[in-house]
Amino acid sequence: MATSEIRALFSVAARPEVVSLAGGMPHLAALPMDAVAEVVGELVRQDGMTALQYGSGQGHPALREQICEVMSLEGITAHADEVVVTVGSQQALDLVTRIFIDPGDVIIAEAPSYVGALGTFSAYQADVVQVPMDNNGLIPDRLRAAIESVRASGRTAKFLYTVPNFHNPAGVSLVEQRRDRILQICHEAGLLVLEDNPYGLLGFDADPVPALRSRDARNVVYLGSFSKTFAPGFRVGWALAPFDVREKLVLASEAAVLCPPSFSQLAVSRYLATQPWQQQIKVYRELYRERRDALLEALTEYMPTGTSWTTPAGGFYVWLTLPPGLDAKAMLPRAITARVAYVPGTAFYANGYGASCLRLSYCYPPPDQLREGVRRLAEVITAELELRRTFGAVAPTESEAGLGALPAPARAARIIGSGDSDE
Amino acid sequence: MATSEIRALFSVAARPEVVSLAGGMPHLAALPMDAVAEVVGELVRQDGMTALQYGSGQGHPALREQICEVMSLEGITAHADEVVVTVGSQQALDLVTRIFIDPGDVIIAEAPSYVGALGTFSAYQADVVQVPMDNNGLIPDRLRAAIESVRASGRTAKFLYTVPNFHNPAGVSLVEQRRDRILQICHEAGLLVLEDNPYGLLGFDADPVPALRSRDARNVVYLGSFSKTFAPGFRVGWALAPFDVREKLVLASEAAVLCPPSFSQLAVSRYLATQPWQQQIKVYRELYRERRDALLEALTEYMPTGTSWTTPAGGFYVWLTLPPGLDAKAMLPRAITARVAYVPGTAFYANGYGASCLRLSYCYPPPDQLREGVRRLAEVITAELELRRTFGAVAPTESEAGLGALPAPARAARIIGSGDSDE
Repeated sequence: MATSEIRALFSVAARPEVVSLAGGMPHLAALPMDAVAEVVGELVRQDGMTALQYGSGQGHPALREQICEVMSLEGITAHADEVVVTVGSQQALDLVTRIFIDPGDVIIAEAPSYVGALGTFSAYQADVVQVPMDNNGLIPDRLRAAIESVRASGRTAKFLYTVPNFHNPAGVSLVEQRRDRILQICHEAGLLVLEDNPYGLLGFDADPVPALRSRDARNVVYLGSFSKTFAPGFRVGWALAPFDVREKLVLASEAAVLCPPSFSQLAVSRYLATQPWQQQIKVYRELYRERRDALLEALTEYMPTGTSWTTPAGGFYVWLTLPPGLDAKAMLPRAITARVAYVPGTAFYANGYGASCLRLSYCYPPPDQLREGVRRLAEVITAELELRRTFGAVAPTESEAGLGALPAPARAARIIGSGDSDE
Repeated sequence: MATSEIRALFSVAARPEVVSLAGGMPHLAALPMDAVAEVVGELVRQDGMTALQYGSGQGHPALREQICEVMSLEGITAHADEVVVTVGSQQALDLVTRIFIDPGDVIIAEAPSYVGALGTFSAYQADVVQVPMDNNGLIPDRLRAAIESVRASGRTAKFLYTVPNFHNPAGVSLVEQRRDRILQICHEAGLLVLEDNPYGLLGFDADPVPALRSRDARNVVYLGSFSKTFAPGFRVGWALAPFDVREKLVLASEAAVLCPPSFSQLAVSRYLATQPWQQQIKVYRELYRERRDALLEALTEYMPTGTSWTTPAGGFYVWLTLPPGLDAKAMLPRAITARVAYVPGTAFYANGYGASCLRLSYCYPPPDQLREGVRRLAEVITAELELRRTFGAVAPTESEAGLGALPAPARAARIIGSGDSDE
């Protein structure tokens, strides 16, 4: 699914009559707007000469200190010197890819993977090898097998890209007992770990799981963001990286944008310094938990037999696997006609897999809309199934044929959502 | 001069006892801070759900309309669909380079050129060929000769990078009667023109000269910025490009940063809609003219014979050529000791030329500081000359040897500042 297709989808999904389960927009109505207005107004009055001026390529020092405090909630010990502030964590992804990847280099990622990362990897002509997950996250043995298979083909993988917490789009997390194994496999293979963690503080039940970076400071580049814990409109993210990588990131960022926006950085910094930001994260967590519950209940109530889905313990997303024979991309126009939108699973694979899956977001619509959206989607799926029953199995679509022809990723799609684990 | 060296220089130059003629920071004290505070506060109160949310990769539609109005001041007729908002015009530079340049491709630029552009070109491993200017800007015959010379070497230049107005660092402008010729030469050679115009509205004397883009909509990609006409801390710039290029720019920007900061865009948009922004540009112009005058008067008063410089009619910079035999980079530590800073000319050349030149900025220090800075610099230059007179010509430094050995760029450096023209 090309970026232009996703853009077209989001433009249709934005129509008021459509329940969009497609986008990943945080629910900003939960923010105290008057307080934020006060923060940015006072920023200009008291510190306008700095907030409106150029800043350093690495980012504002005070904000980098505060970022270290935020990361300490996930067990990370870091120094502000190791942090590079970026234009959202997307820019950090771009910069890391830029400095490590030459055309044809291999990146290992989860199957499925964040669509924005796949877009960046593709822009640098990387070859992405995707490794199956199950409900406990990335499967260590599969990771080792993928590394060996890449090596057997005469190539070397440059890094593992992983979203260990409340995965986008899979809605699963890497369980604690697998974390050291994953790190050890990567260490032994000389594979850098790129840990992308925008949702880590948005867990619904327990305290945050210690980050991969908290267990391995030398081999992990950690990416964080204020887009989900505060607001995405400032575009403030960061990379935490070992010294030699950090230095290259700063030079690459200066070539790309000179410096991240001072205004955004100081606004976030002042928000953290003057507002109860941890309390706000708690507000977000409660809100998203309520929505997740509404979505899961509706799925249980409405979905026909043969449909399965993941149960996220945080974040924004549920990954749904359709009954056998259905194609999420082919079905999308009919879903839009029924006034419900989602992102087809193929968007999250580098090579056309994922046709039987789709991503549902519960972050933005209120609970009653989520229920209504799921009801509409279930009707569409049921109608598709009846059509198949009436006219028999139609010729498989191209993507179904591809899925059937390539057992490993097909299994990956089935592993997610079935609760199976081959660990 | 590496980026890390420039960073070290700026860090020394920021000491309070040093008069910095090095940086290019706009004089933000001229901004009405209370009004700006009101703008950003009201933005959150009235439109916070949009300003704090993700936006489109191409940029906010209302801002793109307003950008077209801004460009109309320089004779440009454009549609908002053709505009891509970027994280400062530096990101536009980066994106254009990303989509056009493969390693080893040739970019033609002026000699000297903006250091940030050279950094970006180098990041993409472009081969930069620099073409001499004189006091009337880029020399058409030299441009044609450079194109032919690149072609004779079996390569093709991809684009001409040019700052036609109030050049950074040269302080000269491309005169109106040369503009059509430059465009024609590029058109005939199939060379795209990348027109970088951050200072176009900051002319001191006359109305803005019509942009290159106003004369050729099909072969010019135009880059603009609010960093100098409003404030750099929001990092809002843009590219105006023909449709096929624009589409690629949007995709590349989405891969790089997802979208430019909504907050920054809507803050600039609201500033343009509610504040007398053209009046503010006039305030800036008056302020920078007064400073330019102070700098030029001080140069005339203090500089020893054999020193020459350009006379900018707008913008931030004067390009100074030292008396024969002196090296601006070697002299810099002694200048810093004498509490004055500048950027050595070598920073503005891709291949080590420019050793006899330096860039002076008059945008930030007040007039009395500018005078004092020039007085200190003149003392350093005079002391260097006396040293040479006392001990005779010392062995040439490496960069002097390089300059002497390569006649064309050496002539380029002399052409600027001497008032000669071979047109």
